[in-house]
Amino acid sequence: MENKKLKVAIVMGSDSDLSKLKGCISLLKDFGIEYEVMICSAHRTPDAAAEFSRNAEKEGFGVIIAAAGKAAHLPGVIAAYTALPVIGVPLKGSALDGLDALLSIVQMPSGVPVATVAIDGGENAALLAVQILATSDEKLREKMKEYKKALAKKVEEKNSKLQEILEKEGL
Amino acid sequence: MENKKLKVAIVMGSDSDLSKLKGCISLLKDFGIEYEVMICSAHRTPDAAAEFSRNAEKEGFGVIIAAAGKAAHLPGVIAAYTALPVIGVPLKGSALDGLDALLSIVQMPSGVPVATVAIDGGENAALLAVQILATSDEKLREKMKEYKKALAKKVEEKNSKLQEILEKEGL
Amino acid sequence: MENKKLKVAIVMGSDSDLSKLKGCISLLKDFGIEYEVMICSAHRTPDAAAEFSRNAEKEGFGVIIAAAGKAAHLPGVIAAYTALPVIGVPLKGSALDGLDALLSIVQMPSGVPVATVAIDGGENAALLAVQILATSDEKLREKMKEYKKALAKKVEEKNSKLQEILEKEGL
Amino acid sequence: MENKKLKVAIVMGSDSDLSKLKGCISLLKDFGIEYEVMICSAHRTPDAAAEFSRNAEKEGFGVIIAAAGKAAHLPGVIAAYTALPVIGVPLKGSALDGLDALLSIVQMPSGVPVATVAIDGGENAALLAVQILATSDEKLREKMKEYKKALAKKVEEKNSKLQEILEKEGL
Amino acid sequence: MENKKLKVAIVMGSDSDLSKLKGCISLLKDFGIEYEVMICSAHRTPDAAAEFSRNAEKEGFGVIIAAAGKAAHLPGVIAAYTALPVIGVPLKGSALDGLDALLSIVQMPSGVPVATVAIDGGENAALLAVQILATSDEKLREKMKEYKKALAKKVEEKNSKLQEILEKEGL
Amino acid sequence: MENKKLKVAIVMGSDSDLSKLKGCISLLKDFGIEYEVMICSAHRTPDAAAEFSRNAEKEGFGVIIAAAGKAAHLPGVIAAYTALPVIGVPLKGSALDGLDALLSIVQMPSGVPVATVAIDGGENAALLAVQILATSDEKLREKMKEYKKALAKKVEEKNSKLQEILEKEGL
Amino acid sequence: MENKKLKVAIVMGSDSDLSKLKGCISLLKDFGIEYEVMICSAHRTPDAAAEFSRNAEKEGFGVIIAAAGKAAHLPGVIAAYTALPVIGVPLKGSALDGLDALLSIVQMPSGVPVATVAIDGGENAALLAVQILATSDEKLREKMKEYKKALAKKVEEKNSKLQEILEKEGL
Amino acid sequence: MENKKLKVAIVMGSDSDLSKLKGCISLLKDFGIEYEVMICSAHRTPDAAAEFSRNAEKEGFGVIIAAAGKAAHLPGVIAAYTALPVIGVPLKGSALDGLDALLSIVQMPSGVPVATVAIDGGENAALLAVQILATSDEKLREKMKEYKKALAKKVEEKNSKLQEILEKEGL
Repeated sequence: MENKKLKVAIVMGSDSDLSKLKGCISLLKDFGIEYEVMICSAHRTPDAAAEFSRNAEKEGFGVIIAAAGKAAHLPGVIAAYTALPVIGVPLKGSALDGLDALLSIVQMPSGVPVATVAIDGGENAALLAVQILATSDEKLREKMKEYKKALAKKVEEKNSKLQEILEKEGL
Repeated sequence: MENKKLKVAIVMGSDSDLSKLKGCISLLKDFGIEYEVMICSAHRTPDAAAEFSRNAEKEGFGVIIAAAGKAAHLPGVIAAYTALPVIGVPLKGSALDGLDALLSIVQMPSGVPVATVAIDGGENAALLAVQILATSDEKLREKMKEYKKALAKKVEEKNSKLQEILEKEGL
Repeated sequence: MENKKLKVAIVMGSDSDLSKLKGCISLLKDFGIEYEVMICSAHRTPDAAAEFSRNAEKEGFGVIIAAAGKAAHLPGVIAAYTALPVIGVPLKGSALDGLDALLSIVQMPSGVPVATVAIDGGENAALLAVQILATSDEKLREKMKEYKKALAKKVEEKNSKLQEILEKEGL
Repeated sequence: MENKKLKVAIVMGSDSDLSKLKGCISLLKDFGIEYEVMICSAHRTPDAAAEFSRNAEKEGFGVIIAAAGKAAHLPGVIAAYTALPVIGVPLKGSALDGLDALLSIVQMPSGVPVATVAIDGGENAALLAVQILATSDEKLREKMKEYKKALAKKVEEKNSKLQEILEKEGL
Repeated sequence: MENKKLKVAIVMGSDSDLSKLKGCISLLKDFGIEYEVMICSAHRTPDAAAEFSRNAEKEGFGVIIAAAGKAAHLPGVIAAYTALPVIGVPLKGSALDGLDALLSIVQMPSGVPVATVAIDGGENAALLAVQILATSDEKLREKMKEYKKALAKKVEEKNSKLQEILEKEGL
Repeated sequence: MENKKLKVAIVMGSDSDLSKLKGCISLLKDFGIEYEVMICSAHRTPDAAAEFSRNAEKEGFGVIIAAAGKAAHLPGVIAAYTALPVIGVPLKGSALDGLDALLSIVQMPSGVPVATVAIDGGENAALLAVQILATSDEKLREKMKEYKKALAKKVEEKNSKLQEILEKEGL
Repeated sequence: MENKKLKVAIVMGSDSDLSKLKGCISLLKDFGIEYEVMICSAHRTPDAAAEFSRNAEKEGFGVIIAAAGKAAHLPGVIAAYTALPVIGVPLKGSALDGLDALLSIVQMPSGVPVATVAIDGGENAALLAVQILATSDEKLREKMKEYKKALAKKVEEKNSKLQEILEKEGL
Repeated sequence: MENKKLKVAIVMGSDSDLSKLKGCISLLKDFGIEYEVMICSAHRTPDAAAEFSRNAEKEGFGVIIAAAGKAAHLPGVIAAYTALPVIGVPLKGSALDGLDALLSIVQMPSGVPVATVAIDGGENAALLAVQILATSDEKLREKMKEYKKALAKKVEEKNSKLQEILEKEGL
């Protein structure tokens, strides 16, 4: 089995979540990871969620990213049916500032973990998926290191630009 | 179909939850409701939870009470598979003082409600189940009214006793 | 008594709450439930609230939905005067992001339950009312099942549309 | 009408609250205020709560102190029926560390205020009642000033004792 | 001493708070209460705050309303220097949704109470001040009762209007 | 490179955290994963933390588990220096019920993810590490599936035992 | 060594934080403090953060102000590498209303303090830096006292203006 | 003026706070800092608090540490009267887990900073005071560096001991 061919699934509970996950999808694409994106609800299509999850491994998925808001059960429900690592992305809804989704995802009981990232942290979910797949894929690990270097470089560039701004504004 | 024969299911995620649900079970017994109690986990035995829920109606259940702590998905997962009313009881765990379980249960997305009661509110779950079944069962409704009268009477008795205590303590 | 004729009351604390409850009203209408909507305040018109609640059963109501914000006492106050099941809808106000209303409604003391739904969860309140009435109304239960199937179908359609969007955007 | 004869009512939702209100009762006694203590529940004996409140003014009460935990509706419900000032004492329960009671009491909607003190702040409720009655009772106001002076003196004494302790412990 | 001549002070920490206190001022005016409004900061002008508070009683004030946001010390600081009842109004700032101001005001230690109203609850502060002054002013108490009746009537009118709206919208 | 030989590091900020991580260590041992356990503080030994993290990959680690309480920076600091997946375990301290540690770990900014598990969720951290390593290790994946089956079986056994308990207690 | 020549460093995690720190920079400038502003991330450029911090003292810095949002590790990481006083400014992000940044900064474990100011409290960070440097700089201390007097005067002016506004509006 | 002679004041609101501040006092003693400890309440002895603060600078204090619980106004009130740096220590009380004290201290309005440390973080308050005084005291700065080295060494020792424990327990 060659690990680099493992796909990543991005599952969201509602189509309104897409805008918050585009960064996630783009990053996976940039890293050359194969992925599939789907809408699937723990509460409205529980059978579809269960079936997807049960078959994910043999369908060639290596990691599953699941994003949901409010009483966000999707990541936990998916984790119940698979032995694959599941990454949960809590999405901020119209009340409680995302705390409901965060606690619903991160506070999983012993036995069934969900790897939780920040509220609306879709990009970090993608990077975590890359890191997971990179544990057995040296090339991917190198790309990840390049990515981290690029991040650092961008900070340095912003710092240079900051100095110009401050000078211009007389600060 | 005679409604008074509808049973109530009490589902808990772990055997450690039993102590918090004894009041719930006792109340159902006192009201003469038939019930079944079971342990069933949304995360450890998802298939059992799904199957129970899918069949609950034809097995003669009229209401399902589900109690869970932490990222408490059990009530929502059960609600996903049945058209029966599902009552959720958030249980206080070792961290966050029950807020995680409360939000995981009450903040259900539109389309799949869970009737949530207070943290560790097992007794109220039983009473709510009785009220639901009583919508088509006059006798049960009368019992419920008697129960409410008894509650009121107990308050009055406690008030009388209070006056004695205060007098004894010179307050 | 034929249960299907039981009405649902929708009580709100202020006229400014109407916009948040239209989905609730529409759903009840769609399910063919008879309902009455009224403004009634636990704090400004406590006598009216008490009288409504005391008479609700004999006026033909089977379920009461009460929505309120801030220190949201309306559902609990109504529950105090009736043996009918009361559904509470916490409404998000201008501060604290709805947490005040949620806790004021859900944390009812033992003896007097309120079936609480999500913050601004008016639609789920309607669905829960339908589920409650459906415990003794087979036709309504069938409608509820159809509703759940329609929900699932909508998710599947959104999933199909998602695939088109992703392709169009080259993701 | 002579204001100094106005009584203070202390209403609690349950007899288990008495231990948290003894300091409150003692203080009123120390200030020579006439008071009555009673158990009365917004949810279990709503009629009694309403009747008490409606008649409180003509029964000679000038201020009402109401203490409750969880979804603490008692102070607000009493305030709904009377024009007297109502002081609310949120009591800490077994979950959520008193936040539920605090928000249920303090977040009253416009039109019906409750003067809220700290969680388990029964003593401050008594002092606030004294301050309110003292607005038209010069002698009581003098007593209140004496009380404040005594408070200050106690702090100074504790400070002196602290210096001894520190010296003894070599700090 | 004639109590009806007691004035109410409205103290705010910053001029930006005025917009949130206009309802408070208007209500006092409507009730015919004499009042003074001032800006005074517990942190920027502590001496002015202390002096105002120390002299408030002999300047003819009967109640002090103090409003502040964030680490809202103003009400507590004023309460430290006077035996008059102090009403605290927590104001919502740019972060934490008003919770910081609420806890900073309501959680006063034993000995020095602040009568706390809801976040941004300026109107209720005015009503509470009226209720306090009314404990020794029968005319004011009658006005307060009229006010409560008017509140109730407004709810009833809104209810009538609601029925028209619903009919018009076919709900 | 053979993935199954990748080690797991368990890093904790203080020796007082060991008791909360024994379940984590035992699980890794049960799964036959090689691991190393160390104390290393982001704040007291930042250089050691940085050096460990920088070298972790070439020292043969595949996953790092980092546990910390309060302002829990350890997982994030380690994640800053490595491209390996980092799992964060928030530990409950003496105040704020673990919320501080949870938010300090999970809310990582874009670019540097930490896979966060529940408060005091050491066991789930171990299981997540196993799942990650299992993405390229079929045998480990099979063990994980066995583990999940055993979990399910334990629930079923507890359910049987529950029925006996209920019968014995006459419930 | 002449203390007045000690510089203040203002370190922010991202260029998007600049707008929230301009008041901070301006104040330092007004007080005649030498300062340097830089972007430097605990997670993206950890080596740069460590190096800056390790050398800050010998580069002539006396105080370091570090501002960050979300899981705000920057102040704590800097404090780990230096014996200089570090002031932390929690910045409000897009979720959780700044609570995450606040707890991530203020809840530092024993041994490594961070002097935390209010959420988005950049100006207070500058004033605190001035106060710290002023402990050994009499002139600076005088300026600080002037600043406090000016603050007080501004409050008094606003109070005067308030009276005009109220009169104009007939309040 | 020789800075090394500047004293540190430790002010607490109540004698019950002493146990939480002994570590703070010991640390100052260990660093050879002169200090004074006193009880002084923002609410019960406001004049004493104001006078102490107003005179602190000329009494030879360089830094003030103020600790308080609940609506913890003491640090802010002291900061209002002095230009010295004030360090605030929020103390956990019987409700709300210290959040009330934390927000009451850290959320100071612009113009009057309080350097806030962790809940019950008395030791860090002492270290911060040392760091502040060390900005103009090279010997103290060296001691602080030694302290940090000792902290690091203790971590390393604990790590060694951990390895022994793990071996003994067969982990």
